[in-house]
Amino acid sequence: MKPLTLTPIGTVRSPHTDPEATPIQPLFAQGCPGTLELLPHLEEGLKDIEGFSHLILIYHLHRSESGPLIVKPFMDPTPRGVFATRFPSRPNPIGLSIVRLAGRRGAILDLLDVDILDGTPVLDIKPFFPRFDIPEGAKGGWNDQVPDAEVEARGRRYTK
Amino acid sequence: MKPLTLTPIGTVRSPHTDPEATPIQPLFAQGCPGTLELLPHLEEGLKDIEGFSHLILIYHLHRSESGPLIVKPFMDPTPRGVFATRFPSRPNPIGLSIVRLAGRRGAILDLLDVDILDGTPVLDIKPFFPRFDIPEGAKGGWNDQVPDAEVEARGRRYTK
Repeated sequence: MKPLTLTPIGTVRSPHTDPEATPIQPLFAQGCPGTLELLPHLEEGLKDIEGFSHLILIYHLHRSESGPLIVKPFMDPTPRGVFATRFPSRPNPIGLSIVRLAGRRGAILDLLDVDILDGTPVLDIKPFFPRFDIPEGAKGGWNDQVPDAEVEARGRRYTK
Repeated sequence: MKPLTLTPIGTVRSPHTDPEATPIQPLFAQGCPGTLELLPHLEEGLKDIEGFSHLILIYHLHRSESGPLIVKPFMDPTPRGVFATRFPSRPNPIGLSIVRLAGRRGAILDLLDVDILDGTPVLDIKPFFPRFDIPEGAKGGWNDQVPDAEVEARGRRYTK
């Protein structure tokens, strides 16, 4: 299939510099601050973003390498297909996080609940629409079977 | 910033062939069937995906061209910054839909609530985790101000 070339629109700055110690989901990065530094010529595209409490960031997992199609997710030792996990080694190194928007200073967005490595190139910013982005009756497969305590213990890797 | 080149992992097949008549969100494509035809050599990566009710598809908006940074969203005639909307003309043509997973036949996923154009190249499949992907108390900015009836009238474009 025809390749697609993308140019990053900005960079995430965060306290997370070690992939092994980075929280695996925003839920485990509660209150962790970071910024998204948008390229200055794109600033106009942020108009009215301040009204949203959460943003969906799509970014380049720039420190992941592609790996096998069967992986062991962080939260569960059972091997799963990579597309049934959020594991960072994927055929296309695209990451997704739903972060809190705390404020905006020109082309800089102040974020909270940041589970993203420092220096991560951002590909797109989408507003989180509660009206559309919360499907009813969603079931989370194997992830629903992992006890809360286990998810908690494995998810907060940045505290270890 | 350094460009990133991605190779699609598969293709969406859907009844939507006219961008002007395609529903703007899965909410307005309730029950609309489609398939994701994964490249056969990636099939192993789908192991255990059947347990999930919803998938987050990340795809190439292959029929969108980049446009201005201020756009008029489909649901509201007020001009907004493109990053405060889900408008398809974006600096990077990346689309995101949360679709329902109805079943799997080998490397083919049967989907419902498909708001994606036929022939769309898919970049990544991520499972929807209710545990992580439903932020508490989310506020949807300008989109929360648009009355339900107006969103409904503008969203169901495929019925016009």
